[in-house]
Amino acid sequence: MSFIVTPQTMHFDAPLPLQSGASIQDYQLVYETCGTLNAARDNAVLICHALNASHHVAGMYADQDKSEGWWDNMIGPGKPVDTNRFFVIGVNNLGSCFGSTGPMDRHPATGEVYGADFPVMTVEDWVAAQARLMDALGIEQLAAVMGGSLGGMQALSWALQYPSRVRHAVVVASAPNLTAENIAFNEVARRAIVTDPDFHAGHFYRHGVVPKRGLRIARMIGHITYLSDDVMNEKFGRELRQAVTQHTSGYKYSTQDVEFQIESYLRHQGDKFSDYFDANTYLLITRALDYFDPARTFGGDLTQALARATCKFLLVSFTTDWRFSPARSREMVKALLDNRRDVSYAEIDAPHGHDAFLLDDARYMGVVRSYFQSIEGAAT
Amino acid sequence: MSFIVTPQTMHFDAPLPLQSGASIQDYQLVYETCGTLNAARDNAVLICHALNASHHVAGMYADQDKSEGWWDNMIGPGKPVDTNRFFVIGVNNLGSCFGSTGPMDRHPATGEVYGADFPVMTVEDWVAAQARLMDALGIEQLAAVMGGSLGGMQALSWALQYPSRVRHAVVVASAPNLTAENIAFNEVARRAIVTDPDFHAGHFYRHGVVPKRGLRIARMIGHITYLSDDVMNEKFGRELRQAVTQHTSGYKYSTQDVEFQIESYLRHQGDKFSDYFDANTYLLITRALDYFDPARTFGGDLTQALARATCKFLLVSFTTDWRFSPARSREMVKALLDNRRDVSYAEIDAPHGHDAFLLDDARYMGVVRSYFQSIEGAAT
Repeated sequence: MSFIVTPQTMHFDAPLPLQSGASIQDYQLVYETCGTLNAARDNAVLICHALNASHHVAGMYADQDKSEGWWDNMIGPGKPVDTNRFFVIGVNNLGSCFGSTGPMDRHPATGEVYGADFPVMTVEDWVAAQARLMDALGIEQLAAVMGGSLGGMQALSWALQYPSRVRHAVVVASAPNLTAENIAFNEVARRAIVTDPDFHAGHFYRHGVVPKRGLRIARMIGHITYLSDDVMNEKFGRELRQAVTQHTSGYKYSTQDVEFQIESYLRHQGDKFSDYFDANTYLLITRALDYFDPARTFGGDLTQALARATCKFLLVSFTTDWRFSPARSREMVKALLDNRRDVSYAEIDAPHGHDAFLLDDARYMGVVRSYFQSIEGAAT
Repeated sequence: MSFIVTPQTMHFDAPLPLQSGASIQDYQLVYETCGTLNAARDNAVLICHALNASHHVAGMYADQDKSEGWWDNMIGPGKPVDTNRFFVIGVNNLGSCFGSTGPMDRHPATGEVYGADFPVMTVEDWVAAQARLMDALGIEQLAAVMGGSLGGMQALSWALQYPSRVRHAVVVASAPNLTAENIAFNEVARRAIVTDPDFHAGHFYRHGVVPKRGLRIARMIGHITYLSDDVMNEKFGRELRQAVTQHTSGYKYSTQDVEFQIESYLRHQGDKFSDYFDANTYLLITRALDYFDPARTFGGDLTQALARATCKFLLVSFTTDWRFSPARSREMVKALLDNRRDVSYAEIDAPHGHDAFLLDDARYMGVVRSYFQSIEGAAT
């Protein structure tokens, strides 16, 4: 049994200028906190989320079974990110679909649902919005900002956008930008959504429909890239569904039925996802992934790009992660070392692929625990 | 300028029993030949095709520019598979959409277009159909049967189904079965097609539509898996389209526009494919891939499964092929060696991923050339 958390909401009236040149105003951010902000206000840890996660990083909701946060194994009393010492904040990003202002909400001026007109968000925009929330919470400097995958990009971006406001950045299973293959997978997922006749150019809300077909395909593609080939073979291999093996002596010989366990798993994941995730949010978040590239304005020179960062870093990667491979983390480690920054790096030999950053692994948890124990200024 | 070839058609009246328990009758196979069958009728080489290729393996069509066959770099006079010595046969498989009987054709009994009712085909069924064509051509024994990817599975299956009819099997960039990840990619592609509202449960021909949205997604996914991460980065990287870089100082900040070159490439490939490929064929061929697993009836023991083969083997794999990795070829090599079969194996260090089996590489071409030079019984 985990501890109880309660989501909170903060409204922002002033326009937030965005990288695209547009701006957004009259928006809200949903966030949750665990632990206690100390008197010096210097033990705050911001957790940034990836594609389909939210502000609900740890703990449970009152009277709601199985409502543990998505990083509940990592964050809590006595956990690697120990909420007996740290004040942990989870924020739902702008444009997401879990309570912060997003494409499903109404534009305050027109009263129309944003839909496809919701402004495009970048990692840098999210970080700027998070910084305003920190202002509102009276937190001038974060003990640490931490995230995995797209969340790791936000942690890195904090170190670059607000160097004096971050003492430690913890960047897990992340990359300094997407490869062509990463962009390619995102693009296929987006095309599946955009070409779903129920998408209506992003204004499906008006039509009372949801582009579920596209969302299902997008999620299935995502899941393949989150897992390693090895773990897929171990979990599913070429196993047939029980319904197939029970009723026939071999295959069903069909082109449209579910026969293999892996097919059943993927369809189930796709169905679940299409029930709760917003299609415009999917486009927006994958685009933020595509765009992130701090070295871009430095002619591709990551060392120059990271020179602005002054905080200490922990980077973690996983050997079987082919979405954000260890090589991508090593690029960041090298660029930081070139700048003589204080960097710890752990390459965890784990079989689970990109998903490993969410899973229990004694070495991974141990590395994060040690790192957070070394962070000074936290309440003891 | 290559040599001229002409497709030919062979009709088969007698029912062909299929692995599913169904059968097909009154069907035709389209095939092409290059070179001359010698008097001993022992210099025939059968080429098996993969997902979207056909009987048109080499040479050109008269008065048709750029009509070279898909393996024109491999097959022809003086090429590694030298048509001055060998009589090369390419066959379009049953259920494909390039002239042999398939889902777009009419059922001879009902007069209705088969559509989704076209019988499910397996690798073993294709090989059985090819064997009947060899009978009709008066070829009792093949000097060699050769294929890449799914074509390699057919070459392997020939060695198992008709051991006395094959002297050499050349299995390139193939595998003894699909992994869970391979099946997963196939399943996502199939779901994209099947859930396209224009698919109409496979009877779209009656509605005068084509499920192009699904076919595009399927092809885009396919293309990602044919290429290596490295070659994608080299060819496309994070390059933006000229239209983007010309008109703005940075990104366009859109969720639906094409901005990166890799997106443009994939969309183009998807569009082209959806113009000519049949959706039911796509389902059928990916299912044949899923089902292929000669070790299955031997409790997963590949060594036992391959004991039936008596021919000599050449296997080739490519280091950056993550669809059918070298490890999968090594499984087959090991199983054949366990059976004390004569096996040559080349693992080519090539950057192009699975696509490498179609591309020019001096070492790859050299290995195949040497192997075919060593085949006895060919006209000299």
